[in-house]
Amino acid sequence: MSHNHEDVPHLNEFLKDSPKNWGKWGPDDEVGALNYLTPEEVLRGTAAVRSGKTFTLGVPIAHPDGDPIWPGRRTAQRISIRDRGDFLAGAGIDYAGGLQDADDMIIMMLQGSTQYDALAHVWYGDQVWNGYPAEVTAGGIKKASVFTLADKGIVGHAVLIDMARYRGKKVLTRGETFTHEDLLAAAAQQGVTIQKRDILLIRTGWIDSYYYTPDEEFYRDFLEPGLTYSPELVQWFQDMEIPNLCTDTIANEVTIEPETGIVLPLHLALMRNLGITLAEILSLDKLADDCAADGQWDFLYSAGPLKVWNGTGSPVNPIAIK
Amino acid sequence: MSHNHEDVPHLNEFLKDSPKNWGKWGPDDEVGALNYLTPEEVLRGTAAVRSGKTFTLGVPIAHPDGDPIWPGRRTAQRISIRDRGDFLAGAGIDYAGGLQDADDMIIMMLQGSTQYDALAHVWYGDQVWNGYPAEVTAGGIKKASVFTLADKGIVGHAVLIDMARYRGKKVLTRGETFTHEDLLAAAAQQGVTIQKRDILLIRTGWIDSYYYTPDEEFYRDFLEPGLTYSPELVQWFQDMEIPNLCTDTIANEVTIEPETGIVLPLHLALMRNLGITLAEILSLDKLADDCAADGQWDFLYSAGPLKVWNGTGSPVNPIAIK
Amino acid sequence: MSHNHEDVPHLNEFLKDSPKNWGKWGPDDEVGALNYLTPEEVLRGTAAVRSGKTFTLGVPIAHPDGDPIWPGRRTAQRISIRDRGDFLAGAGIDYAGGLQDADDMIIMMLQGSTQYDALAHVWYGDQVWNGYPAEVTAGGIKKASVFTLADKGIVGHAVLIDMARYRGKKVLTRGETFTHEDLLAAAAQQGVTIQKRDILLIRTGWIDSYYYTPDEEFYRDFLEPGLTYSPELVQWFQDMEIPNLCTDTIANEVTIEPETGIVLPLHLALMRNLGITLAEILSLDKLADDCAADGQWDFLYSAGPLKVWNGTGSPVNPIAIK
Amino acid sequence: MSHNHEDVPHLNEFLKDSPKNWGKWGPDDEVGALNYLTPEEVLRGTAAVRSGKTFTLGVPIAHPDGDPIWPGRRTAQRISIRDRGDFLAGAGIDYAGGLQDADDMIIMMLQGSTQYDALAHVWYGDQVWNGYPAEVTAGGIKKASVFTLADKGIVGHAVLIDMARYRGKKVLTRGETFTHEDLLAAAAQQGVTIQKRDILLIRTGWIDSYYYTPDEEFYRDFLEPGLTYSPELVQWFQDMEIPNLCTDTIANEVTIEPETGIVLPLHLALMRNLGITLAEILSLDKLADDCAADGQWDFLYSAGPLKVWNGTGSPVNPIAIK
Repeated sequence: MSHNHEDVPHLNEFLKDSPKNWGKWGPDDEVGALNYLTPEEVLRGTAAVRSGKTFTLGVPIAHPDGDPIWPGRRTAQRISIRDRGDFLAGAGIDYAGGLQDADDMIIMMLQGSTQYDALAHVWYGDQVWNGYPAEVTAGGIKKASVFTLADKGIVGHAVLIDMARYRGKKVLTRGETFTHEDLLAAAAQQGVTIQKRDILLIRTGWIDSYYYTPDEEFYRDFLEPGLTYSPELVQWFQDMEIPNLCTDTIANEVTIEPETGIVLPLHLALMRNLGITLAEILSLDKLADDCAADGQWDFLYSAGPLKVWNGTGSPVNPIAIK
Repeated sequence: MSHNHEDVPHLNEFLKDSPKNWGKWGPDDEVGALNYLTPEEVLRGTAAVRSGKTFTLGVPIAHPDGDPIWPGRRTAQRISIRDRGDFLAGAGIDYAGGLQDADDMIIMMLQGSTQYDALAHVWYGDQVWNGYPAEVTAGGIKKASVFTLADKGIVGHAVLIDMARYRGKKVLTRGETFTHEDLLAAAAQQGVTIQKRDILLIRTGWIDSYYYTPDEEFYRDFLEPGLTYSPELVQWFQDMEIPNLCTDTIANEVTIEPETGIVLPLHLALMRNLGITLAEILSLDKLADDCAADGQWDFLYSAGPLKVWNGTGSPVNPIAIK
Repeated sequence: MSHNHEDVPHLNEFLKDSPKNWGKWGPDDEVGALNYLTPEEVLRGTAAVRSGKTFTLGVPIAHPDGDPIWPGRRTAQRISIRDRGDFLAGAGIDYAGGLQDADDMIIMMLQGSTQYDALAHVWYGDQVWNGYPAEVTAGGIKKASVFTLADKGIVGHAVLIDMARYRGKKVLTRGETFTHEDLLAAAAQQGVTIQKRDILLIRTGWIDSYYYTPDEEFYRDFLEPGLTYSPELVQWFQDMEIPNLCTDTIANEVTIEPETGIVLPLHLALMRNLGITLAEILSLDKLADDCAADGQWDFLYSAGPLKVWNGTGSPVNPIAIK
Repeated sequence: MSHNHEDVPHLNEFLKDSPKNWGKWGPDDEVGALNYLTPEEVLRGTAAVRSGKTFTLGVPIAHPDGDPIWPGRRTAQRISIRDRGDFLAGAGIDYAGGLQDADDMIIMMLQGSTQYDALAHVWYGDQVWNGYPAEVTAGGIKKASVFTLADKGIVGHAVLIDMARYRGKKVLTRGETFTHEDLLAAAAQQGVTIQKRDILLIRTGWIDSYYYTPDEEFYRDFLEPGLTYSPELVQWFQDMEIPNLCTDTIANEVTIEPETGIVLPLHLALMRNLGITLAEILSLDKLADDCAADGQWDFLYSAGPLKVWNGTGSPVNPIAIK
């Protein structure tokens, strides 16, 4: 299933009949399907909380053993600016009273860890989400940046679908695919129903495997497991009014669509056309283990990406509240 | 009330009778008073949710007009790595199918925006929170870094005290102080009770004033309004088992304690000694306006600082869920 | 002499009769007038050395009092990564034998200090030096970057013209202009002849004044002294086969051409059209004082900008050898 | 010849009888053996110029295939801030007259390319060059930083010794060593004499091999070829009053001294104790080929490291003028 680059159909053609939510929330909308997250949805999420257990879903940043990252991006670098050593060496700040402090900085890609994508992060043709011209991305995203997502925040009722557990695996295989019908079958086996406007979390086990897999194996061919495109899947996402898709992979979908060779068609069908917000690189193993143990696969989900002005995305540490 | 540097008492002496929670949660504890945030507290927070309204409390990062920041730190810099312009100029990536994308990076101080401090961020003498030697901060914080706070997450029942509104002001004055008794009086006026283990948010109006105040005025003498130290105040925080103090100022307390000239004594009495987590630079005006309008000053609070390995702090975008 | 933006003539029109050296050194040339710097010119430079005195012409980088820089660019930031403090605090590296070390990083604009411009650093219309399409600059300069200049290096016979001293001033005034005829008059007064293929250094005193002038005064209206455009001046530079123009200003010419309001027309007439390399922000006061003292205004000039791949420019510390 | 870390002798003991030049140029000296580079030496260098050929000796920075670098340091990152794409997409700056420009920044280690070390870059015991306490390095080097070297500049008479060619190899083998007596034998074979106060360049072929060697091979065990320590070698460098040692390796000496297991003892014997300036990662193959062709192995050498305030080192692009 390898594809000659020139034989791969262009997205303009491939998605020409794919549904769009452009204009649905007005010509100035910048948050897309997050509009589904009304106060009622927040209350529906709150109502799912039973035990008060919480799980944070971000991965470590600037871990000494490395961070999982899209090839070509650099991993985050944390740098100590001042610490105890400076004070011992007489180079600290002489604060009145004797306070000492440690300060540091970070250099990182905004898509370099657990992250929300701005709706305008990817596109095809000449337009991003809601029909804004792609030129709004130049020199920083002027429309549909991560700032607007972050300003709204993401709070709602979420459900976790554990595809790896469903298939009896610790982690799905490189390039292994699944569809929305597989999601429904897994949900049925888990005893949970995916409801309209649910924030959808899908576990493959992939990201957490980074921490026990050699780099050359994890990144080989850069081929992750994930959802694959079909018109029916896209329609299902639209009908279900999914506001936000979150996975424990770097790309949120199988990197290269096997039938056509197109790179990341779901990013475009779901995010660019339907305005569905994407969150990636979540760590879901601990949450999944707990859900399997107590049988509760739904919860309140709260995520506050950073309000980076004009940003293409933002690192984030989402929280599941069960 | 200006002080000669050499006449300022040392914190070793000044706080020698101040209470400590060291060891209370074991010798290996790294999250301090966040231990108070048990599942019961999460449920108490959830129970406070009534309308489903949400408010994000982070400030913009890398805003073109500047970001409020502790003097001497550099503001965040967001940098476009790839965007529409690159594709127009033939320098984009040739993804099969025609996807185009925008990517960016950020360079920022970990304490350079709305933020959580690691418990080991500041100290006096030779020890940080829980008695770890201050050397744990050298080259990156090895104990009580922001990673452990972020790994736990901060979810609980919160109350907002609006000191500016209480005093009939849009924003408190430079250097204006208040005590825990003022907090209690304001709470009474608001018709809300500060309960044990509440996450405490205090509004002064200061940070939001940054956006309508000239820099030379905002930063003049770098003197913010805020809480002032007293032994009674420290005891009250300990007795109330406050897990987390959040304010809309850069320092969370009046920068220089007026009686003694000590810099940031509450950081040390509350965070270093009692393990109370500090969050700073929150934007609270919109939330406060809503609370004043509907009379509900308590809510579920959810904050996910980034899991920066060895970090002194982390940018964050907390969410209030009413 | 302020100009309405829309009344300013476009460079396409303004320079339509201005001479070009495009193609003179072949269609693949990337170093322009540096081609004049043949071995013969190196020998002419070496022959000018008499006393063996040397002068370095770079300004400090990351100076605690700030660096002179084009408004909108950030000054360089040097950051200690490891130093004695880390070793005192037990966070150094345990090198066998007991070596200890200090290590740094730097974040800086490539045009943020004493610098060479890549020939493709600025342009008008759709083409850069030698007729390459301006698209060669996208995502990093593919043609006529600073790498090619740096790979050649700049070594030749140079002459210093001290315009400030000629006009009896310590430093020229904000916006004060001069022409090639003024250069010739100053040279005559200095008793030196500008010869064909001389590297031309012009002193205004401006950059060195940065270190004793308040920022608000130095940067007011950002209006430097400098050369002004005239067709005759451009022709003179071409006839003289000047390979490299170096000044102690940020822009190398008066920032806004007073007659027309055009920004930096000489950059375009000299660099983009004639291929003359520009070096800026040189510190020339010490060298000029020495030349005035010993009467020797010419010397061997040696500059090695860094070989930054695809770079728009490079910091540099040129050396004058008298 | 592998060594148990604890069996490796400490440099305090190992070098206790090694000669020092501390105080030789006064208690405030910060440039050490560069003091040997008097105007007379500059004239001696100039006198060596015969043909006017020039060679730049820096390696590419931020090369797409990577840069050779000491393990643990990050390679330089050049980032486009503005370019043609921004103007095409309407995000450029609207300069009056129509100028367009490209602007870059760089993030790099100061020891991350062809570089000069500050004299205080490495030390043992509690003191750096000239007896300054090692605390001068904390938070940025206050004494004997690269600024002082850069402010002086390095200009003098240089000789190239081609150890690889002497041994009939394109490049010396991993871990292959040589001594000052080997240098003298090679010089004799080349027909050149190493004179007092010569800047000494040694070619191993190592750095240029980086560009045709797979990374896993180049960095395996990180073991470079190079000089090895002996008391006689140190004495020879002192007697010869060598101001500056430059090589085409990352470490300038065999990384781990084979007899004792000490890391980089020559850095300490030569730089810390004798004040000899070290330059590393030079590209010498082209220069060596030319010298072999014309039989001229000596030349004028000119290097201007950047004047980085408090810096541990600086990237540089030295020039050999034959």
